[in-house]
Amino acid sequence: MEKKIHSLPLEGDDGTIDARIDLDREQRCGFTEVIYAAGKTPEQVARIACELALYTHTVLATRASEKHYRAVRNTCDEHTVIFHETARIIEVASSVVPAPTIDEDGLIVVASGGTADLPVAEEAALTAEKMGSRVMRLYDVGVAGVHRVLEHEDLLRQARVVIAVAGMEGALPTLIAGLVAVPVIAVPTSVGYGASFAGIAPLLTMLNSCAGGIGVVNIDNGFGAAVLASRINRPKWSE
Amino acid sequence: MEKKIHSLPLEGDDGTIDARIDLDREQRCGFTEVIYAAGKTPEQVARIACELALYTHTVLATRASEKHYRAVRNTCDEHTVIFHETARIIEVASSVVPAPTIDEDGLIVVASGGTADLPVAEEAALTAEKMGSRVMRLYDVGVAGVHRVLEHEDLLRQARVVIAVAGMEGALPTLIAGLVAVPVIAVPTSVGYGASFAGIAPLLTMLNSCAGGIGVVNIDNGFGAAVLASRINRPKWSE
Amino acid sequence: MEKKIHSLPLEGDDGTIDARIDLDREQRCGFTEVIYAAGKTPEQVARIACELALYTHTVLATRASEKHYRAVRNTCDEHTVIFHETARIIEVASSVVPAPTIDEDGLIVVASGGTADLPVAEEAALTAEKMGSRVMRLYDVGVAGVHRVLEHEDLLRQARVVIAVAGMEGALPTLIAGLVAVPVIAVPTSVGYGASFAGIAPLLTMLNSCAGGIGVVNIDNGFGAAVLASRINRPKWSE
Amino acid sequence: MEKKIHSLPLEGDDGTIDARIDLDREQRCGFTEVIYAAGKTPEQVARIACELALYTHTVLATRASEKHYRAVRNTCDEHTVIFHETARIIEVASSVVPAPTIDEDGLIVVASGGTADLPVAEEAALTAEKMGSRVMRLYDVGVAGVHRVLEHEDLLRQARVVIAVAGMEGALPTLIAGLVAVPVIAVPTSVGYGASFAGIAPLLTMLNSCAGGIGVVNIDNGFGAAVLASRINRPKWSE
Amino acid sequence: MEKKIHSLPLEGDDGTIDARIDLDREQRCGFTEVIYAAGKTPEQVARIACELALYTHTVLATRASEKHYRAVRNTCDEHTVIFHETARIIEVASSVVPAPTIDEDGLIVVASGGTADLPVAEEAALTAEKMGSRVMRLYDVGVAGVHRVLEHEDLLRQARVVIAVAGMEGALPTLIAGLVAVPVIAVPTSVGYGASFAGIAPLLTMLNSCAGGIGVVNIDNGFGAAVLASRINRPKWSE
Amino acid sequence: MEKKIHSLPLEGDDGTIDARIDLDREQRCGFTEVIYAAGKTPEQVARIACELALYTHTVLATRASEKHYRAVRNTCDEHTVIFHETARIIEVASSVVPAPTIDEDGLIVVASGGTADLPVAEEAALTAEKMGSRVMRLYDVGVAGVHRVLEHEDLLRQARVVIAVAGMEGALPTLIAGLVAVPVIAVPTSVGYGASFAGIAPLLTMLNSCAGGIGVVNIDNGFGAAVLASRINRPKWSE
Amino acid sequence: MEKKIHSLPLEGDDGTIDARIDLDREQRCGFTEVIYAAGKTPEQVARIACELALYTHTVLATRASEKHYRAVRNTCDEHTVIFHETARIIEVASSVVPAPTIDEDGLIVVASGGTADLPVAEEAALTAEKMGSRVMRLYDVGVAGVHRVLEHEDLLRQARVVIAVAGMEGALPTLIAGLVAVPVIAVPTSVGYGASFAGIAPLLTMLNSCAGGIGVVNIDNGFGAAVLASRINRPKWSE
Amino acid sequence: MEKKIHSLPLEGDDGTIDARIDLDREQRCGFTEVIYAAGKTPEQVARIACELALYTHTVLATRASEKHYRAVRNTCDEHTVIFHETARIIEVASSVVPAPTIDEDGLIVVASGGTADLPVAEEAALTAEKMGSRVMRLYDVGVAGVHRVLEHEDLLRQARVVIAVAGMEGALPTLIAGLVAVPVIAVPTSVGYGASFAGIAPLLTMLNSCAGGIGVVNIDNGFGAAVLASRINRPKWSE
Repeated sequence: MEKKIHSLPLEGDDGTIDARIDLDREQRCGFTEVIYAAGKTPEQVARIACELALYTHTVLATRASEKHYRAVRNTCDEHTVIFHETARIIEVASSVVPAPTIDEDGLIVVASGGTADLPVAEEAALTAEKMGSRVMRLYDVGVAGVHRVLEHEDLLRQARVVIAVAGMEGALPTLIAGLVAVPVIAVPTSVGYGASFAGIAPLLTMLNSCAGGIGVVNIDNGFGAAVLASRINRPKWSE
Repeated sequence: MEKKIHSLPLEGDDGTIDARIDLDREQRCGFTEVIYAAGKTPEQVARIACELALYTHTVLATRASEKHYRAVRNTCDEHTVIFHETARIIEVASSVVPAPTIDEDGLIVVASGGTADLPVAEEAALTAEKMGSRVMRLYDVGVAGVHRVLEHEDLLRQARVVIAVAGMEGALPTLIAGLVAVPVIAVPTSVGYGASFAGIAPLLTMLNSCAGGIGVVNIDNGFGAAVLASRINRPKWSE
Repeated sequence: MEKKIHSLPLEGDDGTIDARIDLDREQRCGFTEVIYAAGKTPEQVARIACELALYTHTVLATRASEKHYRAVRNTCDEHTVIFHETARIIEVASSVVPAPTIDEDGLIVVASGGTADLPVAEEAALTAEKMGSRVMRLYDVGVAGVHRVLEHEDLLRQARVVIAVAGMEGALPTLIAGLVAVPVIAVPTSVGYGASFAGIAPLLTMLNSCAGGIGVVNIDNGFGAAVLASRINRPKWSE
Repeated sequence: MEKKIHSLPLEGDDGTIDARIDLDREQRCGFTEVIYAAGKTPEQVARIACELALYTHTVLATRASEKHYRAVRNTCDEHTVIFHETARIIEVASSVVPAPTIDEDGLIVVASGGTADLPVAEEAALTAEKMGSRVMRLYDVGVAGVHRVLEHEDLLRQARVVIAVAGMEGALPTLIAGLVAVPVIAVPTSVGYGASFAGIAPLLTMLNSCAGGIGVVNIDNGFGAAVLASRINRPKWSE
Repeated sequence: MEKKIHSLPLEGDDGTIDARIDLDREQRCGFTEVIYAAGKTPEQVARIACELALYTHTVLATRASEKHYRAVRNTCDEHTVIFHETARIIEVASSVVPAPTIDEDGLIVVASGGTADLPVAEEAALTAEKMGSRVMRLYDVGVAGVHRVLEHEDLLRQARVVIAVAGMEGALPTLIAGLVAVPVIAVPTSVGYGASFAGIAPLLTMLNSCAGGIGVVNIDNGFGAAVLASRINRPKWSE
Repeated sequence: MEKKIHSLPLEGDDGTIDARIDLDREQRCGFTEVIYAAGKTPEQVARIACELALYTHTVLATRASEKHYRAVRNTCDEHTVIFHETARIIEVASSVVPAPTIDEDGLIVVASGGTADLPVAEEAALTAEKMGSRVMRLYDVGVAGVHRVLEHEDLLRQARVVIAVAGMEGALPTLIAGLVAVPVIAVPTSVGYGASFAGIAPLLTMLNSCAGGIGVVNIDNGFGAAVLASRINRPKWSE
Repeated sequence: MEKKIHSLPLEGDDGTIDARIDLDREQRCGFTEVIYAAGKTPEQVARIACELALYTHTVLATRASEKHYRAVRNTCDEHTVIFHETARIIEVASSVVPAPTIDEDGLIVVASGGTADLPVAEEAALTAEKMGSRVMRLYDVGVAGVHRVLEHEDLLRQARVVIAVAGMEGALPTLIAGLVAVPVIAVPTSVGYGASFAGIAPLLTMLNSCAGGIGVVNIDNGFGAAVLASRINRPKWSE
Repeated sequence: MEKKIHSLPLEGDDGTIDARIDLDREQRCGFTEVIYAAGKTPEQVARIACELALYTHTVLATRASEKHYRAVRNTCDEHTVIFHETARIIEVASSVVPAPTIDEDGLIVVASGGTADLPVAEEAALTAEKMGSRVMRLYDVGVAGVHRVLEHEDLLRQARVVIAVAGMEGALPTLIAGLVAVPVIAVPTSVGYGASFAGIAPLLTMLNSCAGGIGVVNIDNGFGAAVLASRINRPKWSE
């Protein structure tokens, strides 16, 4: 009986296998592997991205720098390569795999507390869009002026899931979860100083929320929030 | 113009208002307030529970002790009062509000790592059931023997959402999120000793998961996981 | 030139001087020393309380237990001794020093997030009253149901200073400070579990508030909040 | 009935709404929004500052860099723009909104422990002045030479409120609160090394002070201390 | 060549060697081993104490309970056994080893911040006395009333070394080290609550003192402070 | 093709499957599952222990209390049940599975710093013996008297692996790893107080050792150290 | 009797002895001292490396930079000097000490979770090779795709010891220890962000593993893992 | 009666008093103020240093950079200015105050664990020399090779006080305090990585030492250790 191969090894210049592509990921989990660029060399990111573009239409590399982008653009020159700067995401649109047909599902609303939370909020919003959901942005609605949120209660009520991004004291997800009945994904950010401890303060706030219905992701993890939101919003993935 | 009243104040024996019932919660958020019994006196829990039973069919009090139970049973004697011991939940079934008709939605699977995680897992499972979902339990499938999880891959694939409960190193949610495409709600427990720091270790594990699609709740927060799972599983709440 | 004596040494049974009464405190800081009973023996609390009652009309001992109370009542039997149980405060009304005439100043509002915060909120409210301020209580107005606070915006606007007491995620002071223009004193409580870390979570929330005008005190420190509120509310103390 | 608008959305170059001006803030809380520049791009700070200068006479941006300053100066060229370097504050004096008439209220004394605390102390002092209070500075009076504080007891006694800024062991607020009867606002700074943990040490010192009457703000938060002091010093704000 | 024996093994009832007496300690370090009773069974403490009393005149067991005391008294009945309750120290005065002649050296002053610090302060004072130094106690001179310390400046100036014991914010050692030129040994205590974190707050305060000349010991470690003070006060030990 | 079963589900009284026996563990990992009793009910421990005794000769339950022991003894009455009190281990010697023939391999030396570390050291020593290794104990050889270790250098040099157990500052593993060439397993214990933070201090010491060749296990984890030592000492397990 | 010299002092340019070579290390512990270059000046590393090359064939300097390398190459020009960049290790092959004859022992497998863990994994792999073991690399087999590990179960079963390197949630060692019967050395890395706290998250995961047989080393300590693996793999060192 | 002046205010260029010289320090505490340069501008350090040189012979500025040095050299050109680079100390030898006559007292030995600890060790050694003590250096005697310390037992026994400087696991002070009878001042350093947490690991080790007679100072605080050692070594300061 033939043994099934689940992963594809990639070699660096010196012949060491330093990456393995998870070939079944899309089938198992609904979306291809996304490359986490931070901590990888530009050469590694480019090599993995181009390889993935042979198997899937949309390849994403998050936490990417300008250097990563240049390497990908130069290496994957047969594909379309876009750098979304605020979101720090490289997108490779494959020239060999056709785009999937996407049924638009429910709405994902990405709300954020302050202007400085933009990169994380955009990482979430863009990733969710690329994973096939309709997204609306609602930025700078922090709780110090509670009326800024209350003014948009109607929009929040249309969502199938809300991603709430906030730094400093991080009370936004609690406020929203008390207003609506849909799942709220809470993303603490490292925005703040002193006793925010690079995001620990809003992380704890969100974990201790007295409102139910909140799931928390890692500090600054806009990407993870988007994956969770997509899994909630697109139940056909699990069929 | 008449001002709308949103909350109902309750008075203690000495006349101090020490609780306010949130009258719109069910309409706004899909389910009535649940009483967090720890830190409240038996008298307070009983008073709030009986009041709530005038407005809703199923009243729950979590983290309840035997003492809380006796006070509720004695005070709310017109209603049916049940104590779920492992889950530490008091349930009051109102005799004046009829049970709602429930459309069974998708399946919630509650998986747990070890035998000692049972109270938290049961808090989650029971709450989700009382909030109207179909629930299946998959206990003691910790990652030290990875085949125990893999044996049940089929069951996991039937779920609309998985709640994964684990203490010690807390790797169970990662493992499951890598196997299926549905949302995984991760519940760290305080089971462990030494450097588990009463649940910090599994909490951090879950927040740092390299698998996407995971939302984390507070340590031992089976209740919160159930609310989030219900909001995911029952989208009609948001209509 | 005569050396001025600022403190009065007290001796225990074995002759060791284990306490010194700060004789100028009332003159320097507007109110006599208050006894922090936790960590002191009943005998010590009683000895200090009775001595203080020779110099001032109202003696308070905070964080007191039933045992402390019995010792004080037995020892200071010439004075009136009251035990405020919820607030855990012993009050000794001196029979030899007349009550001061008090000009009622502005209003202090003590707001609290949940029912379990009552002991801390009452410690604050009672202390502020005994220090000569008019106090109103607004309990169980946590942010998970934001309308419970908004309903009482008028009351909050009448205050000269607000004490906001909250455990779990501790967002109440931020919400209030965004609604009014008076100083808000934030008191985190140890109410909660898991990642609340016995009050660290609300403490950090309050320190990182994106709303201005908030001063934070130690976890569960209702007493300290009352002293600060009194100093704000009664400027004549500094004349 | 017309719906009242509470906030004004601002668009970035790409059309995303990345900031919302809280139009009622001055009326609700006594002073217009202050811009926290750190984490915002120079372009964003400039855009918000110029917009705010249409509604209020004095616009402040704290934690600002030289780059922020240049952007504001270039963009808001119709107004007067000043950069207070030590305090790291940009001030925009509107050319279209007249300066308010200010009744000088009580005195705010800003005391600091060491020379290195100057930026934080100046942030506090300057903000308090711009918010309309009379301010006196008392710098480098740390507790290692306790006589440096005691020499200025008279000055401290004239204050309506004292802001005490200190890094390292942070004992200055305790010392001052034991000398006077007015509120003391304690500002821990990140000055120090090793076990000061970037300000945790003085933060804990201040929260645990054995002297009453102290309210603590975030590490290095001179701005927050000034807002609190202004709310204490200028009670007419709440009328 | 004969191998020198440095330690003497002791056997428990089941024959396991569970303790080894360090025979050279007195010669090497100036004083015999002191037994740390916490975590040892009464039987173990008694067995070790009686064995040590064969080699040295004064045997001490710190952190001892009533149970430890009864075991020692029963087992070492040939020697004089005293229980110092406040200090939690058992003293065994050997009946077979004569008391050493002691030259009284300089003075050790043990100062403490509050009444609740007494057990730690007494552990330090009593140990220092038993190790041969002259000791004076100066208790309840915390910094909230700075005049209580300043009144005793003369006494502090007579000391060869000062042990300063304090909980809560722990500023006492800094204050004293700024007044005198002798070494100050700082002992943080676990007295306090909330953000004192069982003594972390005063520990950090003391480590970050802006005054020079301070050496810090572990939280509640009155014993360690006494050993260090003795080594400073009695230089002949090193000859 | 028949699906292989890897785990055996066990049911509690209410029919919930609350434990699963890992049937392949011995074959995969060299030794049957060991029961961690803490956090399990006596009934659960007894049920699992008796079931395991049908498959393996020696069943161990660690962190067991007297209550657990009584339940096991009563339930598994056909087998021999022993309670090792100091080590807190219940041993069930199966009456239906014969004892395996054991080749004695190299020596494991279990060294400990102080008398109070005994329970952890015994947990390690006993477990290693039951897993088939020859063990020697070397207790109370802490580094404050370095000669106590140096006296036993010969014994240490005979070991195939050393388990070094220490609380407080935890320097023993470093000292030993600098003396010998075999692997050293470091076990921090929670023995200590104050800034030992229940074992964090020795844990960090061991992780930061400047000596090579040290592997660290969790605080108080004598069991884990024994498993690791057994895997090192008995390479035939991996064949 | 002549006193044996154990260490050789080295002088810096200003005559201060700033390093001492441990002459017996190879004999006592199986391998010569390895230089930890971080925190040492290039001049110091070069001086120590060249001196060591007089006594041993292979000199290693870990955590070395390009600057360190250039200094060593220039100073030790009589020897062969190689810089392994990914592993950040300088190797000096002595021209005066012959290479030892090495018996190849069992196999060490170095597994890693992700591509970004490469530098730490290579530090481990290269050091183990230089210390005389046969090494195989198995990189990018993180647990999010558990099949990537399961595919290589055969290779893992051939090892005498496995080094498992992982950042983020760090569950790889647990998974492997549940599959094989050999010792697993767990190396947490600082790869990750937010609540990984620079490696604390995987460190805690590994310490709390529910699988037995794991020894943990410091964060990013590939070198220490290699020393421990060598001590396990090459028992002749201890003869 | 004339009021005595204790401190001399210094003005910056903008007229703000940003420093106050403590005029009585030398008389009260045995040595003039030392300037902590980090966090002060070069201009401030130079201004304070030159002012101090009018009152005392030796002025020191610690944690100084090259920039600080140049400013001091240019400003204080009438005095002799030396920069001790390794110790990061600027020394100003006054041309107007004569050097004091110094009685050489006992010996201070400064021991350090590793080469990378040199800057901290030199800060301690140099400061102690400038404060008038005889100093001997004993560097790179870390505990991984315990014989390196034992070889120098004789030197250690000649000291009146030992300063033991160590990073990583920080066990050196314990080892030394177990060998001699004099006070040991423990200085943890930030040398290390990963779980050393920038010096927390050795700090905790030292605070938890099982050897008596150790006083700990802040991480990297060579200066503080020298002040404490001087106070111990030169008792005439307190006369």
